[in-house]
Amino acid sequence: MKRIETPKRNLSRSQLILEAAQSRFGQFGIEKTSMQEIAGDLKLSKASLYYYFPDKESLYRAVIKKEQDEFIESINDDIKNIADPDEMLRKYAVSRLSHFRTLLNLSRLRFENFSEYKPVFGETMMIFREKEKEIIVGIFERGINSGVFSLKDPDHIASLFLDLLKGLRMRIVNSKKLLYIDQDEFEELSGMIVDFIEIFINGIKSR
Amino acid sequence: MKRIETPKRNLSRSQLILEAAQSRFGQFGIEKTSMQEIAGDLKLSKASLYYYFPDKESLYRAVIKKEQDEFIESINDDIKNIADPDEMLRKYAVSRLSHFRTLLNLSRLRFENFSEYKPVFGETMMIFREKEKEIIVGIFERGINSGVFSLKDPDHIASLFLDLLKGLRMRIVNSKKLLYIDQDEFEELSGMIVDFIEIFINGIKSR
Repeated sequence: MKRIETPKRNLSRSQLILEAAQSRFGQFGIEKTSMQEIAGDLKLSKASLYYYFPDKESLYRAVIKKEQDEFIESINDDIKNIADPDEMLRKYAVSRLSHFRTLLNLSRLRFENFSEYKPVFGETMMIFREKEKEIIVGIFERGINSGVFSLKDPDHIASLFLDLLKGLRMRIVNSKKLLYIDQDEFEELSGMIVDFIEIFINGIKSR
Repeated sequence: MKRIETPKRNLSRSQLILEAAQSRFGQFGIEKTSMQEIAGDLKLSKASLYYYFPDKESLYRAVIKKEQDEFIESINDDIKNIADPDEMLRKYAVSRLSHFRTLLNLSRLRFENFSEYKPVFGETMMIFREKEKEIIVGIFERGINSGVFSLKDPDHIASLFLDLLKGLRMRIVNSKKLLYIDQDEFEELSGMIVDFIEIFINGIKSR
């Protein structure tokens, strides 16, 4: 049977590339992965690979975006079945930390080079941040409507909440040369986030 | 009248050097300040200056330590007259932010070079952190004893509190090439810290 080239097949090839790249970046980081290797994994010519992604940075950005989309989808899936807004926030905080770790291990950038790569995914980061904020505002509003939370400005406090969580994550990362967290650090960070989330929930509770 | 060389006079000369260095670093940052200039400000020979401080880094570290000691002293002074533990925490958070700004403006390190300088004041930072923690644990314990706060592990939560505050401060700094915050950023950060502190206080309140 003759295979027919359809846009659908193109889409699926770019998906395959994303998955191969995700696996390479995840194992070796962006710096130690070449376009040649990714093409090799898929038995693709380098030219074909460059047809889909003009350079390693654009491929990397697409992988980050894929991870982020998957995270937003899975967190939305997870919390839609939770009735309690407190529980939703807890679930969010823990899942967000796992996602952070996945992303870190995906890139394994050396800290000195991080700022070089930052502009590459600046826009991707901003879009992700907005999606995150939407989720948190949604949880806050649910809590306000059911009389559990007392908040003047959910939008503003959602930003603060995200910044506080990010600040705790960055605490581990800022002290290292390599953007990577090991199991011990992950557990320490998890403990801090659990403590934080309880104080935070208590802090926005209606009395 | 003949002046007599005493240890006291030595002490005062090193104080003078510290003040001159503080002023130079504050105006121009560590990178754009030379030992020659500091010696010049004091009409001192370079050799005399090096007698007190063997290099620019050790002088810089001594200036940072001076700023930190002054901060700890002034915050202890400020809060000893406050009866309400809530109010003590608020006072601490606001003063800590001002201190952060002073330190930033004192150094004005370019972000890329920050990690080079970090080891220089690693120990100074750790001692300062312990002093900060002592203050926060003191406030927590006062709150617990008077039945205002409900906290299982004051020591642990004091660390978390300091990390959360630091995370918010770093949020502004991490996005820039130059370690410097302007008036707008300072006000934005102040607003966030005020919101945070209210949620935090509420979060550790006894019911």
